[in-house]
Amino acid sequence: MPDYIAAVDIGGTNLRLALAQTDLPPIRSIIARSTTSTVGIKDPQLIVNQIHAGITSLLQENNIPKSALKAIAAGAPGITNTDTGVVIVTSYLLGWRDVPLRDLLQNSFHIPAAVDNDGKLAALGEAWAGAGQSSPDFVFLAIGTGVSAGIILNGQLHRGSTFAAGEIGYMLLPSLPDTPAPRGKPGALEASLGGEGLKALWQSQWSESATTLPRDLHATEIFDRALPDNANPADPLAQSLLAHAAKMLASTIYNISLILNVPLFVLGGSVGVHPALIDATAALLVSWGTRVQPRLLPSTLGTDAQLFGALRLAQQKASNQ
Amino acid sequence: MPDYIAAVDIGGTNLRLALAQTDLPPIRSIIARSTTSTVGIKDPQLIVNQIHAGITSLLQENNIPKSALKAIAAGAPGITNTDTGVVIVTSYLLGWRDVPLRDLLQNSFHIPAAVDNDGKLAALGEAWAGAGQSSPDFVFLAIGTGVSAGIILNGQLHRGSTFAAGEIGYMLLPSLPDTPAPRGKPGALEASLGGEGLKALWQSQWSESATTLPRDLHATEIFDRALPDNANPADPLAQSLLAHAAKMLASTIYNISLILNVPLFVLGGSVGVHPALIDATAALLVSWGTRVQPRLLPSTLGTDAQLFGALRLAQQKASNQ
Repeated sequence: MPDYIAAVDIGGTNLRLALAQTDLPPIRSIIARSTTSTVGIKDPQLIVNQIHAGITSLLQENNIPKSALKAIAAGAPGITNTDTGVVIVTSYLLGWRDVPLRDLLQNSFHIPAAVDNDGKLAALGEAWAGAGQSSPDFVFLAIGTGVSAGIILNGQLHRGSTFAAGEIGYMLLPSLPDTPAPRGKPGALEASLGGEGLKALWQSQWSESATTLPRDLHATEIFDRALPDNANPADPLAQSLLAHAAKMLASTIYNISLILNVPLFVLGGSVGVHPALIDATAALLVSWGTRVQPRLLPSTLGTDAQLFGALRLAQQKASNQ
Repeated sequence: MPDYIAAVDIGGTNLRLALAQTDLPPIRSIIARSTTSTVGIKDPQLIVNQIHAGITSLLQENNIPKSALKAIAAGAPGITNTDTGVVIVTSYLLGWRDVPLRDLLQNSFHIPAAVDNDGKLAALGEAWAGAGQSSPDFVFLAIGTGVSAGIILNGQLHRGSTFAAGEIGYMLLPSLPDTPAPRGKPGALEASLGGEGLKALWQSQWSESATTLPRDLHATEIFDRALPDNANPADPLAQSLLAHAAKMLASTIYNISLILNVPLFVLGGSVGVHPALIDATAALLVSWGTRVQPRLLPSTLGTDAQLFGALRLAQQKASNQ
């Protein structure tokens, strides 16, 4: 019987689970997975109960005894102290404060557990099994509803002295307000480049004379129409929104590059992986004539990046015992 | 006879040399030093000849045989490949391109030599013997004529994939232009926060009705008069320049903190160490209500920071042989 590990991705609305075999290469290691809704569930113990039920089902469905499960790791959508295993703070969707998630998991499963911020786990996942595999130094940018960075230096996650490295949604940039948004409010960059922010910007600029597209669209649907294709010409308002997003993203990458001088940015999240955004951002960076152009690559793991990062963490936990 | 090492700080206008004894604690290790002018001298071989003559004098004056000198390290004011020992590019003051400085020093002294960027050496110096001694992670900000950062993570310099980490003079910030300055021109942050930039800003805003101070002042002289003291009330234009500089510096620190989450910033350079600037910047960061306030400390080594960094590098070089 081979050893198994479990990975958990706790999202604002979904709980995603994966069961993996430790002796297989990362990309082929996941043997079973499941997704359940967490809508309306905020209590940490209830979430852990849901994780326990889900993993138990996966084990049973695959005829794997509980004793073969050697470790579990979970990504949480908030700042997480990886030394103590405590989720310090999450966004309003979960509303967690100082949740001892690692202990809750260990008490539930009676195996070693580890927890980390989901964005940082996504970076770790891309480093281990994705677009960052061949680069010991890179920055993973997650651009979905939120905007955050996961920093890999010398092949290791840089977590920061209070585990808050990469919380770039508050970055100060030209054309954004010159003082940061107060705590608890989305940062100005997040409000300007995140999916919800782009959607709101689209709606505020929308008029029947400016565009033939509907008023209610996701950022990625808008980007889809910013370039001409066989069926449609480019939509001018969609073009303008794409140009805005590319400028925000290029400025973000430019500032991080000045500080860290990493050779690669891996772009993830539903907004971040859009090819039109990546191409427009790369073109802008080239036009700015920086001495060294970082490469921009889309995430190869997509929404699985966090799960792979959690698997990596669980594997380390299992092999340390 | 103890072993000795030599440190060199190549500036735009001065050449500073130090001779140190390897078996003494860092802060007491320098036994002799000298400063000579490099005005009008740009040729790298002539600079190396000047270094050789200076170090030879220091050895002779202290009755130390050449054979006791075990290694030499130099800081250059430009992006420096520490693997090959080549200074890739310096500012216009020296105008160097691809100068094999390490080889030139080794050919001249016939001992192991090492070279690095002067700002990075200053960070290393503060980490070894200055304000960063007790913090494995911190950022050294050098704010003099130029603006640059030296990043220490896990007690090590983070140099970047093309040795350009910390070249933050081009950082994009609110109220600055929204595209970077072209290569070869000073970056917008440098032009707004560096000593020359502040001086130019002062002169552009100066009028007899706005201030009683002279039109021709250095940034630090202006800061001196931004706060009231026993002899003088605060000067309103000086106050406004200080507020501008503090806002630029706070924004810079804020963005770097978002990315790296380091607990400490050490401020160096003639502008950066000014207490009025540090106090105003710290107050602004507190007023922005960031979750974690980094500490701001002035450099304790001052203009010697680079020399101490070079000594550290020379010591490592000597002990590796």
